[in-house]
Amino acid sequence: MVEEPAARRVADSLTVHTTTVMPEDTNAYGNLFGGLLVALIDKTASITASRHAHLNVVTASIDRVDFIAPVRLGDILTLTARLNYTGRTSMEIEAEAYSESRITGERAHACSAFLTFVGIDDAGHPTPVPPLEPVTDAERARFEQGHARAVARRASRAG
Amino acid sequence: MVEEPAARRVADSLTVHTTTVMPEDTNAYGNLFGGLLVALIDKTASITASRHAHLNVVTASIDRVDFIAPVRLGDILTLTARLNYTGRTSMEIEAEAYSESRITGERAHACSAFLTFVGIDDAGHPTPVPPLEPVTDAERARFEQGHARAVARRASRAG
Amino acid sequence: MVEEPAARRVADSLTVHTTTVMPEDTNAYGNLFGGLLVALIDKTASITASRHAHLNVVTASIDRVDFIAPVRLGDILTLTARLNYTGRTSMEIEAEAYSESRITGERAHACSAFLTFVGIDDAGHPTPVPPLEPVTDAERARFEQGHARAVARRASRAG
Amino acid sequence: MVEEPAARRVADSLTVHTTTVMPEDTNAYGNLFGGLLVALIDKTASITASRHAHLNVVTASIDRVDFIAPVRLGDILTLTARLNYTGRTSMEIEAEAYSESRITGERAHACSAFLTFVGIDDAGHPTPVPPLEPVTDAERARFEQGHARAVARRASRAG
Amino acid sequence: MVEEPAARRVADSLTVHTTTVMPEDTNAYGNLFGGLLVALIDKTASITASRHAHLNVVTASIDRVDFIAPVRLGDILTLTARLNYTGRTSMEIEAEAYSESRITGERAHACSAFLTFVGIDDAGHPTPVPPLEPVTDAERARFEQGHARAVARRASRAG
Amino acid sequence: MVEEPAARRVADSLTVHTTTVMPEDTNAYGNLFGGLLVALIDKTASITASRHAHLNVVTASIDRVDFIAPVRLGDILTLTARLNYTGRTSMEIEAEAYSESRITGERAHACSAFLTFVGIDDAGHPTPVPPLEPVTDAERARFEQGHARAVARRASRAG
Repeated sequence: MVEEPAARRVADSLTVHTTTVMPEDTNAYGNLFGGLLVALIDKTASITASRHAHLNVVTASIDRVDFIAPVRLGDILTLTARLNYTGRTSMEIEAEAYSESRITGERAHACSAFLTFVGIDDAGHPTPVPPLEPVTDAERARFEQGHARAVARRASRAG
Repeated sequence: MVEEPAARRVADSLTVHTTTVMPEDTNAYGNLFGGLLVALIDKTASITASRHAHLNVVTASIDRVDFIAPVRLGDILTLTARLNYTGRTSMEIEAEAYSESRITGERAHACSAFLTFVGIDDAGHPTPVPPLEPVTDAERARFEQGHARAVARRASRAG
Repeated sequence: MVEEPAARRVADSLTVHTTTVMPEDTNAYGNLFGGLLVALIDKTASITASRHAHLNVVTASIDRVDFIAPVRLGDILTLTARLNYTGRTSMEIEAEAYSESRITGERAHACSAFLTFVGIDDAGHPTPVPPLEPVTDAERARFEQGHARAVARRASRAG
Repeated sequence: MVEEPAARRVADSLTVHTTTVMPEDTNAYGNLFGGLLVALIDKTASITASRHAHLNVVTASIDRVDFIAPVRLGDILTLTARLNYTGRTSMEIEAEAYSESRITGERAHACSAFLTFVGIDDAGHPTPVPPLEPVTDAERARFEQGHARAVARRASRAG
Repeated sequence: MVEEPAARRVADSLTVHTTTVMPEDTNAYGNLFGGLLVALIDKTASITASRHAHLNVVTASIDRVDFIAPVRLGDILTLTARLNYTGRTSMEIEAEAYSESRITGERAHACSAFLTFVGIDDAGHPTPVPPLEPVTDAERARFEQGHARAVARRASRAG
Repeated sequence: MVEEPAARRVADSLTVHTTTVMPEDTNAYGNLFGGLLVALIDKTASITASRHAHLNVVTASIDRVDFIAPVRLGDILTLTARLNYTGRTSMEIEAEAYSESRITGERAHACSAFLTFVGIDDAGHPTPVPPLEPVTDAERARFEQGHARAVARRASRAG
């Protein structure tokens, strides 16, 4: 019998990835290549998912990525990935990216994204994940919004 | 005076990227890393956008990426990027990814995505793009759906 | 008993790889690094070989690569790989690379190459490939030229 | 006249880089390649140095890297970089790397390193950095040890 | 007035590149990816060309690459690039690749290639290179063979 | 019974890695990224260790890396790795990096490092390595200094 996994909190799986934009990371205009930013977001969010579920995980969908401001060569880039919502086998994670100038220290919101991950067992099949226990009002609000997006995603897939 | 750009057709900017999954492209489970797939999709779709607009372009948003089936080490991967809809400065592109076995030739739908690009001038400012002229019934339907998604995106950003 | 593989046509294995030159792909002069171009050609041609043979394949030789014009940072790069000739276990593939300006759409012939691949079985040994059936006059001419090059290669190896 | 830079604290420049080991990051034994780990440490420590100094920085020396335990494919890797000591133009940073299993959550100390960075001006010349103000007893002890190591480094270079 | 460049010898520009095959360098069968090997050969040969000419150089053609034996994950790979022949602005370089087992030390000839480089001036135009002075009988024989290949290349391009 | 491994000489395992700095190798200031230089040094030194020991090897520590002068985009980079000292299962290797201008041929000392490797058996456990037999006075002096550093390292680890 598989034990019911204990609830975990948002803070238990919060993940921070800080890096800096090198020439190999840039596009032809000298800014961080957007596709690479999504790849970094996907990697960072997968860590949050595994830290919550103590499972291997796969990305089911990247639900929306808005590129708000370019990140420049040499800038510091900070990504955070935070668990918003858990279903039975799925987890919605919200990622945010900030650029930071090495000289002025000024920070700018570069990108936001929602991603859905699924916990998998050794055979690669979806497997239940521990429930998320929201603690603060903000966490409860994000849980509800995440739930609404999960319902909308299921509807759009069925449609 | 800037000349009004002439309408162009879907076929004029259709782009195909065929590659194969090498070990450096895989995740820890030996499949194509999802974040890298999105990066390849972004690159391929940016080519469709530039081929339509004859402009440099930036990604405004990646609107929805569904990972339907894993792509395995050694598989052939085919990405297509097709212009669905044009606004004044924006272009919606639909990308699809198929895996193909080297041995059986069997193909599987791996991933779908919608991306929005904006044409930019030399100063990096949004600049008008030529209108898309849908020709077939399917192209007209996709244009209408793309228009609806653009309206929804604008609404959700304003919200 | 192994079934005699059915003949296949040039169009059945034609492969197109469209990409764009990023800073990580350039040499110290800001153009596409020639060695990387050959690597992309090798990958693309290996797909044509597998699509024809429905086998894993290895590169036996890259027979001649002419670098005709540089490809610049930000340019679109289109590679095509087309089967010219099949021997018992070998396949000659002709690859061509074109650069394309994002702004003017102007295309230039960047590079041509001939490559020879061998189909391999699970043990890594050469194994027969299906015959190529040339259909047009141009395909028949390329088949004959490919045959002549294969004979010359064998002679130079024996020499 | 250049204003005397205000003292800053350890917490102001503390940097965390969390990532996961992909096949492209491994050595021939399937563990994180040690040279790559040092490269990640160097990148992360350079961020701490710039966050403290609000300057571009260059690595003067990597003073000692001990590889304590291998990090495995798929593991989560957490790097922290913390400022220990500042001289007139130099900063000593201590980096630590921990591996973390996705399944058990178990953490292991993988690597420790000391690095020295120098703040540079637009011409690439060394330029004064703000003094570090240690606050806790542990911070004061690390400042003293960092000072001792800086003296020893200068002596060994002169030797 | 530009001074006539003094003759240089084969030994003056001989270049050795020793590396080891990491997972990121492999193809789907766990061997060194052939396209990457050509890229490494191109890089190494470009060093020989610059060391001879004291000029920036571009690859004009890769004239023939034979893949003789696979190089395995973890193997040591040694590339040598040696100048065979100089024309007015062109240089023919012969590259050879050897694999070497870490355990047995056994070496195997993996690959041979001929490459032609052209010296370029600051505007990117072909510019005269110093003559090669062959010293040994073997060097004189390779010079003559390189001359014959250069003549054949020019003929095939004109054809 | 395991045979006592025969002594080997410094020249038997000397390794040279010559490469050139591409844009993908640079930092935000257009010079070779220091972290990458350490990764190349680690790879090259691991070859020296395996060539001496005829074993797989792991890096135990990188003992000191001094960055003396930047290496510029397009420069030739030469790394040498030479065995200084052997203990029972450990080997100290000294690596040196030189930059070389393609145009002037001028060479500059860019970086020096000491690294310690351990030979491992199939189970990944430390295993005895053949003794190094220093031949020249310089080799004997480096052996003695390497021995002194090994003693100091052990003391600092125990401390």
